[in-house]
Parts: sequence; structure tokens; C-alpha cells
Amino acid sequence: MFSLPKPVSKLIDAFERLPGIGPKTAQRLTFYLLHVPQAELEKFAEALTNLRKNTVECSVCFNVSESDPCEICASSTRHKNIICVVEQPIDILSIERTNKFDGVYHVLHGAINPLNNIGPDEIRIGELTKRIMMGTHPILEVILATNPNMEGEATAMYITRQLRAQNSKLKVTRLAHGLPVGADLEYADEVTLTRALEGRREY
Amino acid sequence: MFSLPKPVSKLIDAFERLPGIGPKTAQRLTFYLLHVPQAELEKFAEALTNLRKNTVECSVCFNVSESDPCEICASSTRHKNIICVVEQPIDILSIERTNKFDGVYHVLHGAINPLNNIGPDEIRIGELTKRIMMGTHPILEVILATNPNMEGEATAMYITRQLRAQNSKLKVTRLAHGLPVGADLEYADEVTLTRALEGRREY
Repeated sequence: MFSLPKPVSKLIDAFERLPGIGPKTAQRLTFYLLHVPQAELEKFAEALTNLRKNTVECSVCFNVSESDPCEICASSTRHKNIICVVEQPIDILSIERTNKFDGVYHVLHGAINPLNNIGPDEIRIGELTKRIMMGTHPILEVILATNPNMEGEATAMYITRQLRAQNSKLKVTRLAHGLPVGADLEYADEVTLTRALEGRREY
Repeated sequence: MFSLPKPVSKLIDAFERLPGIGPKTAQRLTFYLLHVPQAELEKFAEALTNLRKNTVECSVCFNVSESDPCEICASSTRHKNIICVVEQPIDILSIERTNKFDGVYHVLHGAINPLNNIGPDEIRIGELTKRIMMGTHPILEVILATNPNMEGEATAMYITRQLRAQNSKLKVTRLAHGLPVGADLEYADEVTLTRALEGRREY
């Protein structure tokens, strides 16, 4: 039986371990890289080894960063009294792209998911409540920007209950649900449409 | 303006250079790897640097291999007088999976594509004719297994003409065109259907 050279199959294996990359894509990428100059391969390899080595978690918001505190937490132009809570560092990128938020963030690094054994203690909820109650800045608003799916909703609900128990006056908000801009009403699911109706605003 | 930490954006750039990986996928993969142990990242990096370092091109068939000649060319059980011509090393994998071919291969490393400035001299056609005319084994058949698209057909046609000019008796065959197994007649395009009709066989 014919088998691939080890260096080739090893790289295919590495690619296959990535989410959303199946065996066929892993093969295609690997055979593509056989045509790439060695210098480019080394640059890719270096980027991989340095990814975690040269980054730290911000001790304030747990975002991935080159410095501690991170660029956003250290910035003097960001409002430290509005915290936007997200599941992953990549979500910060999406919110920053809107250019409509000038507060700070808190990265949970996950969402509550009992099926995968991820409870409130496995993600950075304790750090969030501590930061809000004992931090140097009085917090005016906490925006819950967890994903609009089952896990994200459960996490948002849990955090709200925790924060309200400690301070019933704290303003806790959640990103609006509704029709995505540019979409067709025809293809909207009934849950989204219900939320869009409930959240309708005067024109 | 918020910018990603350099180690993160560098890896995103590296992923984006791969075919079929867009900016969103590159971001997703990179942020996924932030959660992966450093040892796994180093293994991935090592596989990348070793991909070309630890492989050679077989001097007989130009397949990617750990040894020269490659496993297939060196095997005593493969028939050296039937050569299957493919565009890329990855195509060998597909043909080997059928378990129906016990000859040897010749990898062209591309196909004739005038739009991309790839002529017959840019791919290993000269090496093929030389191998057939001057090799130690008399060749009984050359199977052209280039892709069934414009470039692959042009390449197959060109090679046929070259080989026939040198030896008009040489058997040169092309993989059959027709309906893929498991497909619907309803969705077959007319060119494929025409070829399936032309190539029909007695039942």
C-alpha cells in the first residue's frame, strides 16, 4: 500500500486538527505549501511558535495583548466605567470595527455550557464581578455582548443575576436582537422576528 | 484605532496566504490556536519547516518523496512499463486509492496554461519524453491522467502529439469521461453527457 512521505502526512495531520479543516482541505493546503519557498514556510512556523510566546493576557480585561495592561485598558481616551463583556478576544475585533464603543472590555474566554462541562467557574465571571465591585473605577454600565445563542444567553442571564445580587442599581444591558441589516424578512426565523417585533422602536 | 497584537496579526497574515483561506477564516484559526498548548504549536511549526527540508523530488517520476527514487519507483512489484501522467503529487493519492493501478507515475507539476504564462517547458514534459525514449524500461502504455478541464486537456493533447512524433506505435490513453458514479442524469452538463454517450459500452 502506498503511503505519503512522513513530512507530508505530519503537516496534513497538523492542519486537520484545526476547526473546520477536513482531511481534503488539509491535503490541499499541504501540497500547496510544497511549492512555497522554504523562507516563507519558516516565517509561517515562526508566527506559530511566537503566537503564545510573545503575547500575554491583560490582567484587567483578559484580552490577548503584547503588553499588560492591554492597549485598550491602558488608553486614556477609553471610558473605564463602561464594560463590554464578550466571550472571546476575536469578538473585540468585531465591536471595535463599528467605531461606536469607547468603553473597555472583559473577555470571559468561553460561555457557560453544561453539556461540555463548562460552568461559571471555568470562565472569567468571578474576575468580572470582582473587577466591578472592587475596581478603582465606579462602573456605570455593563454591556453583555455574549453570542446570541443558547450558551451566550445562559451566560448573560447568569452574569446579570450575579451582578444584580451584589448591586441592584447597576445598569446591565444586552445587545439588541432583531433583523440583521441587509437581510430578507422572508428568510428570518420566527424567534428573531418575534424579538424584532418586541424590540420595535418608534420611527 | 485598535489594532491586533503583532504576533496575532502575523499568524493571520500567514494563514491568509493559503489558497481558499479568507480573512475571516484566518482570524478564526489564529484565535483558536491561542487556546492550544505551546507544545502543539511547536509541533505544527516543526511540520512546516520540515515539509520541504525532509522531502525530495524523485529523480525518475518527480513525485514528492523521502527517498530518491521514491517508494513507487523503487518498488519491485510495480510495472515500470506503464506510466500514468498526473499534474500534481496529490493526484497520485487519488489514483492509489482505487487500488487498480500497479504501474508507475510521472508528475508534471502543473498543466499548460498560456494565460498564466505556463508553457510546455515550464512543466516536466521534456523529462517525460526523455524518460520514455531513453529509459531502461520499454514503455507499453502512457495513461494521461491530467485534469478533465481546459488546461488538462490541452496538456494531454500536447503530450500525445509529442510522443506520437517520436514513436507512432506507442499506446497513449486518456482517462474516460462520463457520468460520475452516484450522480443524477438530470444534473449532468451537456458536454459530460455527450462524452458519456460517445463512450458508451455494451452491457
